Amino acid sequence: MKYIDFTNEEINEVMNKAWTAFHQYRKLSLKQRADFMRAIAVEMEACGDELINTAMKETNLPEARLRGERARTIFQLNSYAAACEEGTWLDIRIDTANGGKTPPKPDIRKMLVPLGPVIVFGASNFPFAYSTAGGDTACAFAAGCPVIIKAHPAHAETSETVANAILKAAGKCNMPDGIFAHVHGGSVEVGKALVTHPYTKAVGFTGSFLGGKQLFDWGNQRKEPIPVFSEMGSINPVFLLPEKLQQSSADIAKMYAASITLGVGQFCTNPGLIIGIESGALQNFIATLGEEIKHIVPAAMLHPGISKLFSENKAKALLQQDVTTVAVSETDAKENQGLPTIASSTGQAFLNNPVLHQEVFGPYSIVIRCKDKDEMIEVAKNLEGQLTATLMATENDISNNDEFMEAVKNICGRFILNSVPTGVEVCLSMHHGGPFPASTDSRFTSVGADGIKRFARPICFQNWSNDLLPVELKNQNPSGIWRTINNELTRSSL
Amino acid sequence: MKYIDFTNEEINEVMNKAWTAFHQYRKLSLKQRADFMRAIAVEMEACGDELINTAMKETNLPEARLRGERARTIFQLNSYAAACEEGTWLDIRIDTANGGKTPPKPDIRKMLVPLGPVIVFGASNFPFAYSTAGGDTACAFAAGCPVIIKAHPAHAETSETVANAILKAAGKCNMPDGIFAHVHGGSVEVGKALVTHPYTKAVGFTGSFLGGKQLFDWGNQRKEPIPVFSEMGSINPVFLLPEKLQQSSADIAKMYAASITLGVGQFCTNPGLIIGIESGALQNFIATLGEEIKHIVPAAMLHPGISKLFSENKAKALLQQDVTTVAVSETDAKENQGLPTIASSTGQAFLNNPVLHQEVFGPYSIVIRCKDKDEMIEVAKNLEGQLTATLMATENDISNNDEFMEAVKNICGRFILNSVPTGVEVCLSMHHGGPFPASTDSRFTSVGADGIKRFARPICFQNWSNDLLPVELKNQNPSGIWRTINNELTRSSL
Repeated sequence: MKYIDFTNEEINEVMNKAWTAFHQYRKLSLKQRADFMRAIAVEMEACGDELINTAMKETNLPEARLRGERARTIFQLNSYAAACEEGTWLDIRIDTANGGKTPPKPDIRKMLVPLGPVIVFGASNFPFAYSTAGGDTACAFAAGCPVIIKAHPAHAETSETVANAILKAAGKCNMPDGIFAHVHGGSVEVGKALVTHPYTKAVGFTGSFLGGKQLFDWGNQRKEPIPVFSEMGSINPVFLLPEKLQQSSADIAKMYAASITLGVGQFCTNPGLIIGIESGALQNFIATLGEEIKHIVPAAMLHPGISKLFSENKAKALLQQDVTTVAVSETDAKENQGLPTIASSTGQAFLNNPVLHQEVFGPYSIVIRCKDKDEMIEVAKNLEGQLTATLMATENDISNNDEFMEAVKNICGRFILNSVPTGVEVCLSMHHGGPFPASTDSRFTSVGADGIKRFARPICFQNWSNDLLPVELKNQNPSGIWRTINNELTRSSL
Repeated sequence: MKYIDFTNEEINEVMNKAWTAFHQYRKLSLKQRADFMRAIAVEMEACGDELINTAMKETNLPEARLRGERARTIFQLNSYAAACEEGTWLDIRIDTANGGKTPPKPDIRKMLVPLGPVIVFGASNFPFAYSTAGGDTACAFAAGCPVIIKAHPAHAETSETVANAILKAAGKCNMPDGIFAHVHGGSVEVGKALVTHPYTKAVGFTGSFLGGKQLFDWGNQRKEPIPVFSEMGSINPVFLLPEKLQQSSADIAKMYAASITLGVGQFCTNPGLIIGIESGALQNFIATLGEEIKHIVPAAMLHPGISKLFSENKAKALLQQDVTTVAVSETDAKENQGLPTIASSTGQAFLNNPVLHQEVFGPYSIVIRCKDKDEMIEVAKNLEGQLTATLMATENDISNNDEFMEAVKNICGRFILNSVPTGVEVCLSMHHGGPFPASTDSRFTSVGADGIKRFARPICFQNWSNDLLPVELKNQNPSGIWRTINNELTRSSL
């Protein structure tokens, strides 16, 4: 290993600096925060081809994907910077005094303020967009929090390069010393020391259930519990409704063969579970999906640990009672490659066997054949929380299925119609999260500028004069922030 | 005990009914929810004098206070109903499709949906406003969640009466069976069974640290962790800054003698800690505060358990090194009454002794004499999270104290200038909560309509046609809900 794990002393020093930086950074204006974020975007772009080459070497991801992901990361930084500066996310509420009431009503003004230093764990499957300068980092900086990255050991050099870009931007923008730190650590102890440090006030994580749940438990078992936002993936159920399936089983199969194997299946929104009702159309769908999968060539996975887990978890699933293998790629997988695989089983087997509810991270999906509509509803009701759920359905399919619709809505964070769950648009309307175990806090998103709110809390000021209030709460509103004044949303000054 | 603890079987039946009710209630319109809440307000009013008499008997609170508290509870129900119906709290974001982008951007629309059945624990010190039909209940109903009350055993009959009013309103509004349930339980087991039931999706609590933290731990240790909103009180530090104290030490002392003893000191915002810098003015303040306290007549506390704890915790505090008793009421306390008491100690003793940081729930406060400004800053930095912090200060006092101001801001949920922390206005700008241990989740308030968001989570709909979308997300916006459409807040239709 090129990078050595940080010691507890080094971690302590990092956190002390972050704590000092927090008290300076939180006082900077929204524009100063946004300028810093935009400067990071510029420096990331300036890393040029070298960064792409480093990431290709470390992650096995193809060049086009990495270039796209860097562009996405830059878009995140710039668009969250714009949201930060615009200020509506501060959720400002102002109620002016009313001396005529009994007792007299004081002037009260509320806004969000940052929580404090945030630990962000780099995600192996998004070396740019959910790692060092990724979505969690951008949200924390926008909220007014220093960031400490726990570099993912599988792309430590990529992470180090991006960290240097952030430090360069921090220098150019005169950010306080300690606003950002980059911590290496292959061992569990480094993560634990970071999450349990008293100056840590929140945690962002994208990855496996085991890792994310462990961080959540550490965060809650502290003397002072802190919010831990773990996005832990899911199996992203896809329901094939009868009329739609009848109309276009082959097209759906082709669309899903591509979605299941996109990026070697290494997305948290990968459709790992497809549910239909026994019929000729479902048989056609399965046959076509199998044919498609046979022709998809295996590719290298992110790192040997992930490909080993993929093989093991897939093997375990395929060994379960009433599970059959529908098809595998006709091209043999070389070392470290993920072999695209489709399995199938019955609704009854799925309802009885928790193993089939577990994520198999990689190019794999299982098709569940329900005996009737009621069994499909039972499957929907028995699913754990999911990042996404998808319906392939006509209006007819939906309008007669109220109980089913409610059951699906109740378990997912994003509800998709006639499309695929892979591809997570970065926009304000996106919700990337979902009921546990998809994420540890279903009330917050890790994609889109609403993710900034994860790292902030409200404070209200009672009976302060205009001169003494924070700039965003003063009577004057020169930057036109949307504020709720006496129960009316307005951009006007008071 | 007049009421018998619910058995596990009874609790299970209650939760099963709540789960069924949830799937019906969540589909009702915002107006239907609001009408139900308003109907509860009407039924509470209709309980008339009998309810007040029952509460007086059970809580020892005086008639005027209870009439005021019922009026406040009715105001909460009506004002949160108005907020519910108005719909802005749904945090709707719409991004329309853009086929011109690569890849094409789908139509995505996000809104909040209810979490599921909510357990609300009645608070002994607010038999109406934070109990059966109190703030948590109103917020949960507004969010679309059924409510299960764990009645506070100290006012079980009051709670039962209000519960019947809610059930009457539910009947008149044709609410689904199971929308509300009232559970008696003096034992820990009843609370645990409710919090750990798989159909429970959130918990609201106002009370002691020990109780609130236990619920929080149970909630997080579940197979599916759930949010637990415990508001656990605090000592609400008041800082007396030099210039202000010089100008009006006697007035401040009189104001605080009243605040410390208001409602026999039984408010979570009671000022239990007053901090000043050694000076003649501080001596004057302490002397006047002592004189005032001598003339305040003791009154009965809520129940024998609370008065016993008050005596014990006060005695423990007074026994600490360098703590002196400044004054006690000149009127002897009868059984169950709280004897108003003021203590004093030094900054050094406070910094060294965690016992002095603990809440003494009742008519008690300790004045801390710091040797200089630096020691006062140290005290501020070493405080745990607080619901409120108050400054008695001139503009001069504040403008030269940046480090101090940041330290205080960082530990409180509500920051008050030249007033008292008791009296929590019910309005949108109120934040009642604070960093741990004031509450278990500093990001949410338990007073004001923003509290509705505790019991909801976002879901986004991707690629749905207008006909199939929930009414609030459709292109048309007949009720004029504020929605963010393509990054612009608007009340217009699409």
